[in-house]
Amino acid sequence: MRLSHALIPTLKQTPAEAQIASHRLMLRAGLVRQTAAGIYAWLPAGWRVLQNISRIVREEQDRAGAQEMLMPTLQTADLWRESGRYDAYGPEMLRIRDRHERDLLYGPTNEEMITDLARSAIQSYRELPQILYHIQWKFRDEVRPRFGVMRGREFLMKDAYSFDVDYEGALVSYRRMMLAYLRTFQRLGLRAIPMLADTGPIGGDLSHEFIVLAPTGESQVFYDSDFETFDFEKSEFRYDDPSDLERLHALINGYYAATSEKHDEARWEQVPAARRREGRGIEVGQIFYFGRKYSDPMKFGVAGPNGTMITPEMGSYGIGVSRLVGAIIEASHDEAGIIWPDSVAPFRAAILNLRVGEATCDHLAETLYAKFAGAALLDDRDERAGAKFADADLMGHPWQIIVGPKSAAAGRVELKRRGTGERFDLSLDDALARLL
Amino acid sequence: MRLSHALIPTLKQTPAEAQIASHRLMLRAGLVRQTAAGIYAWLPAGWRVLQNISRIVREEQDRAGAQEMLMPTLQTADLWRESGRYDAYGPEMLRIRDRHERDLLYGPTNEEMITDLARSAIQSYRELPQILYHIQWKFRDEVRPRFGVMRGREFLMKDAYSFDVDYEGALVSYRRMMLAYLRTFQRLGLRAIPMLADTGPIGGDLSHEFIVLAPTGESQVFYDSDFETFDFEKSEFRYDDPSDLERLHALINGYYAATSEKHDEARWEQVPAARRREGRGIEVGQIFYFGRKYSDPMKFGVAGPNGTMITPEMGSYGIGVSRLVGAIIEASHDEAGIIWPDSVAPFRAAILNLRVGEATCDHLAETLYAKFAGAALLDDRDERAGAKFADADLMGHPWQIIVGPKSAAAGRVELKRRGTGERFDLSLDDALARLL
Repeated sequence: MRLSHALIPTLKQTPAEAQIASHRLMLRAGLVRQTAAGIYAWLPAGWRVLQNISRIVREEQDRAGAQEMLMPTLQTADLWRESGRYDAYGPEMLRIRDRHERDLLYGPTNEEMITDLARSAIQSYRELPQILYHIQWKFRDEVRPRFGVMRGREFLMKDAYSFDVDYEGALVSYRRMMLAYLRTFQRLGLRAIPMLADTGPIGGDLSHEFIVLAPTGESQVFYDSDFETFDFEKSEFRYDDPSDLERLHALINGYYAATSEKHDEARWEQVPAARRREGRGIEVGQIFYFGRKYSDPMKFGVAGPNGTMITPEMGSYGIGVSRLVGAIIEASHDEAGIIWPDSVAPFRAAILNLRVGEATCDHLAETLYAKFAGAALLDDRDERAGAKFADADLMGHPWQIIVGPKSAAAGRVELKRRGTGERFDLSLDDALARLL
Repeated sequence: MRLSHALIPTLKQTPAEAQIASHRLMLRAGLVRQTAAGIYAWLPAGWRVLQNISRIVREEQDRAGAQEMLMPTLQTADLWRESGRYDAYGPEMLRIRDRHERDLLYGPTNEEMITDLARSAIQSYRELPQILYHIQWKFRDEVRPRFGVMRGREFLMKDAYSFDVDYEGALVSYRRMMLAYLRTFQRLGLRAIPMLADTGPIGGDLSHEFIVLAPTGESQVFYDSDFETFDFEKSEFRYDDPSDLERLHALINGYYAATSEKHDEARWEQVPAARRREGRGIEVGQIFYFGRKYSDPMKFGVAGPNGTMITPEMGSYGIGVSRLVGAIIEASHDEAGIIWPDSVAPFRAAILNLRVGEATCDHLAETLYAKFAGAALLDDRDERAGAKFADADLMGHPWQIIVGPKSAAAGRVELKRRGTGERFDLSLDDALARLL
C-alpha cells in the first residue's frame, strides 16, 4: 500500500476522548475511527490487524478440530424465550422490532441459536462430539462505552460451542479449547494466564478466564509467574489424547492464578514471594462448561446406544477478537507508538523513501516495494524525514527500511527493528534476504 | 472434515418452503438453515463456499488497487439525515433505537458512512484517487423474503467506493471496477453480462448491472451472445492504463445488452438473430457513478492545486456475495444436485469409503484424507453406498474418490468428475497426482 494514497490518517495530536494508551494509539495510528458511541470503522491498517488475529484464531480452532460456520447477527426473541434469557438479559441487549412487529435482537452470544441448529441437525450420539465456532460481530449496548475497542458496543468475537454425550466427553472438549487458547494467545505475542472464574450470565460450574497483564486492566489478578515459562506452541500436548489434555488441565490448576473474586489468601501465601505477580488484567477470552443448561430447556436430545435418549453436555468458548487489538497494544507499546508483534502487524515493514522525486531513492524504494508484494507499506508522501520516522514508530511496523539519498547511491538501505531500536546498514539484497 | 462428525445435515426430502432450485439444494445439501424469516445460519459447508467467493472477490478488488477496510453493521440515523436518505428510504430500512433512545439503523449500504470517513481523513487532492471496499453483512427488511439467500434480509455484500478529483478520474475508477467485476465473475465460473441499468435509490447517471442468465431470474434481459466469448482473466487490459480501460468500456458498450427497462427494440433488431439471447437474469453486482450526490450535501471538500476547494466525484460498486452462492447454484446444477465450479467448491473432493470398518478401505481412505489436509470431505458414515453416492452428487464436490473393497485390495480407487460424470480407475498415487 502506498501511504500517499491510503486511508491511514495518522494524527499528531492525541484525541481528547481517549483515556488509555491503546485507544489513543489506535486513533493516532489511523487504525480505526469512531462512527457512533462504541461503534468503530476499521480503516485499512486496523482491518489488516483484525484479519491477522482472526486468521490465527481460526487456524488454532481448526487445529483443535472445531468446525467453522457463521451464524447471523440478528436473532429472534423467541429463541431466547425458550432458554429464559430474553427477560433475564438486561438493557445491554439491543432489542429490535422489524416491519412486521416481530421481536428481534442483535446477538450478544449464540448459545440458544447453536442449540437450536444442533437439535435440528444432530440425531444420534454417533455424530458426537462436535465443536462448532464462528467469528461474528456481536452487540452489547453498554451504558457508557469507553476505552475504544476494549469496551465497545459492536465487537468481533470468536465463539465456539461443544456438544458431547457425557460429562467426561465435555471435559475433553473443554480442555481441547484450553490448549487451543494457550496456543492462540502465544502466537499473538501475548502471555495470557488462565484463571478460574465465575460463570456469570452464561451459567455453568467450570470456567477459566484468559487474562493479559496491563495497568489499564479491568480486574485485579494474582498469579504464579512460573506459569509464564511454558511454551504451548512447542509443547507436546496432543489434541487426540485425552490423557495429554488431562495433564494440561492439572498443570494449569497446579499454578496459582486467580481474579480478585476467586482470590484465596491462604493459597497465595504458599507461592514463593519472588514468583507472585499481582496487578491489573485484561480479559481476552473465557471458556465455560455448563452441561445441560441449554440442551435441557430447549429439549435437545439425541438417540443413545440402546434406544435411550441422551441430552448432550455443552460448553462455550469465547475470544474477544476486536478487543485483542487493544489488549495487544496495551501490552506492547512505548512513548513513540505501537510495537506490533510480527504475527499481527498490518505490514511487515514500512519503506521510508526520504527523498521522494529523487531518481535513485525512488528506484530503490519501488524495487523493494515490488518485492514485498503487498506486505509492506511504502511511505511515498511528500513529507520531511522526521515526520516519516515519527509515523513509522507510531504505526509500529516490526521493521523500517530507510531509503536515504546517500546510502541509496551506494545501493544500500538502513534497517531498523522497531521493538529493539537496532539498526543495520545493508545492501538491498541482504535487506531483502533478512526480511523475506 | 469427517462427515460422520460434521454439521452438514443433508436432507432426502425437499423442504416445502423452497420454490427455486438453489434454495432447495442449499437446504438439502446442508449448506444453510433458516433461523428467522430471510435470515440464515451458514453451516460449515455453506460457510466454506461463502469464504471461497469472498476470497476471490477480495483478490480481484486488491488487484484493482482497492483498499480493504471494515465498516460496522449499525449506523447512526444522523448520518443519513445529512444526505436526506433517512426519510426517503422506505420500510426496508431496519430502524433501531438504543438504550439512550438514539436512532440507529442496520446499514443497507454505506455511501454516507464512507463519505463521512473520507471527509475526516482526506485533506488534499494529492491523496486522490482512492477506492475503498469492505465485505460486510447488510440488512434489508424485505416485506416478503423468499428464494433463500437470493432475497434474504441479512445478506453479505462487497461494496466499494471511489473518490476522484474530477469526472475523468471517476470514469477511470468506474472502469477499473468494471474490469475487476468481469474477472471476478469469470473466476467464480459465471458468465455475468454487464448491462446499462437504472440507478435507483443510490442515484447518479451511469450504472451497469452484472447479470447471470437463469430461468428463475427476477428480470427479463436481452444480450448479444458474442460477448460471452471474451476471456477477461487472460485479457491484456491493464488497470494502470486509462486507455486500456476506455477500450474495455467501449467494447462493452459495443455489444447489445439491456434489462427490460433499458431495452431498445430498434438496436436489438440489428443484432444478428443467431446471437440474440433473451431470458431471465439474476443480478449479481451493480456499479454506479454518481458524481457529487453525497460529497456535495455532506460538504466533503479537499484542497485543490491552487488554493481552490474540490468536491470529490464518487462512485459505488456492489457485489452480492451471499446471493452469489444461490446464483452459482442456479447456473450450475442438475437433477441430482449442485455442480460446484472448482473455484468455490466447499471441498475439492469427497472421499467415499464404501466399507467403513474394513481394514483396507479404512487405511486407503484415511491415507487419502490425510494427503488432502483439510481440502477433502471424508464420508466415513456407517451408511449404504447408494446413500453416499447420492449425498456426494447432491453436495456437488468437483471430484468423488470412491474407495470400494475390491479396488482397495488392489491399491486402486475410482475417480468421478461430478460435472461430466467421467470415471477413472487409478492407483492411489495417480489419483493424488491428478487432484493435488
